[in-house]
Amino acid sequence: MKDMSDFEARLHRIGAERYHDKHPFHILLHSGGCTIDQVRAWVINRYYYQSRIPMKDAAFISRVTDPALRREWRSRIEDHDGRAPGEGGIARWLKLAEGVGLDPDYVASERGILPATKFAVDAYVHFVREQPLLPAMASSLTELFAPEIHKTRIAGLLKHYDFANPDTIAYFEHRLSEAPKDVEFGLDWVKAHAVTEADQDAAANALIFKTEVLWAQLDALYSAYVAPGRIPPGGWQPNEGLL
Amino acid sequence: MKDMSDFEARLHRIGAERYHDKHPFHILLHSGGCTIDQVRAWVINRYYYQSRIPMKDAAFISRVTDPALRREWRSRIEDHDGRAPGEGGIARWLKLAEGVGLDPDYVASERGILPATKFAVDAYVHFVREQPLLPAMASSLTELFAPEIHKTRIAGLLKHYDFANPDTIAYFEHRLSEAPKDVEFGLDWVKAHAVTEADQDAAANALIFKTEVLWAQLDALYSAYVAPGRIPPGGWQPNEGLL
Repeated sequence: MKDMSDFEARLHRIGAERYHDKHPFHILLHSGGCTIDQVRAWVINRYYYQSRIPMKDAAFISRVTDPALRREWRSRIEDHDGRAPGEGGIARWLKLAEGVGLDPDYVASERGILPATKFAVDAYVHFVREQPLLPAMASSLTELFAPEIHKTRIAGLLKHYDFANPDTIAYFEHRLSEAPKDVEFGLDWVKAHAVTEADQDAAANALIFKTEVLWAQLDALYSAYVAPGRIPPGGWQPNEGLL
Repeated sequence: MKDMSDFEARLHRIGAERYHDKHPFHILLHSGGCTIDQVRAWVINRYYYQSRIPMKDAAFISRVTDPALRREWRSRIEDHDGRAPGEGGIARWLKLAEGVGLDPDYVASERGILPATKFAVDAYVHFVREQPLLPAMASSLTELFAPEIHKTRIAGLLKHYDFANPDTIAYFEHRLSEAPKDVEFGLDWVKAHAVTEADQDAAANALIFKTEVLWAQLDALYSAYVAPGRIPPGGWQPNEGLL
């Protein structure tokens, strides 16, 4: 963290301590330790997160009075929703769903998603809708840590799982180019606007909150499908939604 | 209204009875009866409406779980905010501001806007943020009536005002091609989703609400700058913000 401001270093420490790359579910996933059903459960639940990101970004834009900032942020929605049917990150996630043997229509129907996944993700959307712009934007800065986990994931999936090929995991390759441009803008904006100590605390706390949103999703997944493996009522059952 | 459903005819009647093409300020504006200061007051106040439309549309998108509907609606934000600095409807509105002798930075600063303009426009943003999707979308259907007023306005401005030329009034020409595609989609969606009588009432009431939002802005403008011409505290004074 040489040449970083104290504030930027603080944000990076939050990632080092709390980002979900260190969650046991991800370690299992990336090292080839997941059963196909555990991978499927991850794909189904993570779909909910993917699907809510553009809504979160639209909630942000809806509160921005500066056309230039709105325009900058709109590209995130475009990355996820695409410019035509079948394009964009959500469509690529459904390619992954197909690749692991799930009916993409089942996944898109949002059936079987763990309630705890929804609570965590909805908390993120509400946070961005309701908090001041600075913490709302700062909560996106987990993207600082995303390229590393995506690289690990791409390598791990390709090495360990038959379903993994450039087509099925295209989502992650795209994020490798999309996330850095987004986070560069976001980090510059947050650094420029987090002037007071109170601002910097608010931004850091927003980033902590976001790491909690990510971590809680994996805890719920682990509990339901790894250990103890107790699927809550309404949660996806391994024979549902298959191709 | 031949061949229309009763519901569609009901929506059209709302326009015939309540749309702001019939407001005395617009009749004055389009017939060449406005002083340049009255035109400037209109440009300054209407800027606030223009600037909030993309926020309103983002608020709508933030509540839509269907990527296809989000994608369709996103084009509205793009129409207003553009794809690069200097593009889009808001930039074109600032061209009009320059054309009538106003400093576009002054107009974009949102100083001098009548409080009543803000209250009406903010009520629209809140409505779309808070109401169910059907009335939220139905409130946009004043676009059904927009092409007619834009044609009248283009002809009236070109005929009566020295500032009017294809460059300064480009905003309205663009809306002539943008609004019809938007309203065709919106009307189809509203007709498909307003199934029950209660749904149709909600949609019709949303459209009535929107006509009230538009009308109230012109009443405030008329009161401040035409008759009685009593500019409220904080309202634009005719010597402010000039080029």
